[in-house]
Amino acid sequence: MKAKVRLYVEHPLGAGQSVPLTREQAHYLFGVMRLGAGDAVALFNGRDGEWLAEVAEAGKRGGTLACAEQSKPLQMPPDLWLLFAPIKKARTDFIVEKAAEMGAAKIIPVQTDFTNSERIRQDRLQAHAIEAAEQCGGTYVPEVTDLQKLDRLLANWPEDRHLMFCDEAEAGATGGLTGAAPGPWAILIGPEGGFSEAERSRLTALPQARVVALGPRILRADTAAVAAMTLWQQALGDWR
Amino acid sequence: MKAKVRLYVEHPLGAGQSVPLTREQAHYLFGVMRLGAGDAVALFNGRDGEWLAEVAEAGKRGGTLACAEQSKPLQMPPDLWLLFAPIKKARTDFIVEKAAEMGAAKIIPVQTDFTNSERIRQDRLQAHAIEAAEQCGGTYVPEVTDLQKLDRLLANWPEDRHLMFCDEAEAGATGGLTGAAPGPWAILIGPEGGFSEAERSRLTALPQARVVALGPRILRADTAAVAAMTLWQQALGDWR
Repeated sequence: MKAKVRLYVEHPLGAGQSVPLTREQAHYLFGVMRLGAGDAVALFNGRDGEWLAEVAEAGKRGGTLACAEQSKPLQMPPDLWLLFAPIKKARTDFIVEKAAEMGAAKIIPVQTDFTNSERIRQDRLQAHAIEAAEQCGGTYVPEVTDLQKLDRLLANWPEDRHLMFCDEAEAGATGGLTGAAPGPWAILIGPEGGFSEAERSRLTALPQARVVALGPRILRADTAAVAAMTLWQQALGDWR
Repeated sequence: MKAKVRLYVEHPLGAGQSVPLTREQAHYLFGVMRLGAGDAVALFNGRDGEWLAEVAEAGKRGGTLACAEQSKPLQMPPDLWLLFAPIKKARTDFIVEKAAEMGAAKIIPVQTDFTNSERIRQDRLQAHAIEAAEQCGGTYVPEVTDLQKLDRLLANWPEDRHLMFCDEAEAGATGGLTGAAPGPWAILIGPEGGFSEAERSRLTALPQARVVALGPRILRADTAAVAAMTLWQQALGDWR
């Protein structure tokens, strides 16, 4: 049995579990992907690993899948948060998608002094993270939080969490992750237009913070997010 | 004098040079960006570094800039090619943009056995590379070639050029760039759907080729391109 569709569900997964489908899921599986009774679907819920399931009932407005066997154990990403300042819609979507693919555990949109957008659609961004997890074969979906104010986050920054801070004003700096300690980390990608002076002093004063340069060219925020996560995953995460 | 616009031009740049503008450039500078006589523009042509220039004449259909002083020397990217199989339009554009930002010297779209698109718009992709260079502060614009057949490229592969080959079928492999030799390199990003068996044997038989894994999750081609260029730039390129 080989599944051509991977689907995220909320329902518990386990041997013999019957998984009811929402109307949207039924439309996707039976309308768009043309699956029918007996076809295989790979399911994951972020907690129970990946399970192969079979279509038991297929209807226009719903249906049921029957879990057969576990096809992958749960694989949690490293304890890495990605903090970024939302930019234009397409690029914000992109950053969330990339964070899920690259294995961030939590995605935190932050409002900085130079952030243009005051609001985000958290539900839409969370849906992007789910879709990216479905695509990349992950068994975990990172949580996308609501927009948070950077100054408040930094004022209450967890003592045990390191912060890798990437700032376009630092282009050409030479700090890397060599010798960095493992453990909980966060990556902070600066907004277009950079950080304000107040933010920059607060960041450099934070003992958990470490400036990491991303080469001699100025990267867009979405490029910087992927590049920073690559450096981190290779040095301290699950690419080692 | 501080320029709020960076512009790529074809014309030679140097002290006292007068640079004529095309109709499109004049529209952009004077119509869209609202510059006028005496305003500063940063110019680069990929050969002479970056020059600060002043608007000498501003017209609806053209104009002239006068070069004042060099503001950056020419900085060539390392001798790195990016080879990728074109995918959906938006993601292909994105890969070209990212390759320019990340400092590839040459961008080569390749037709593989599982590539869907038979044609690309080379002129449009080249324009994306120029725009990315304008944005990222680079003084060089990578050439985007026409679509080339992968099997023909590999059959005539330059003896002295290493090839970093990233394949989603290799997710979870452990090869990195540790100990890799400097010199001319190329990165090849696999198409969605992976390489064919014939392509994979040809690649693994190539003495210049080295498989590099990009973590335990399957990355989309555009994510893989940025991640692979990050690993390469850090190990062998100008991020060192």
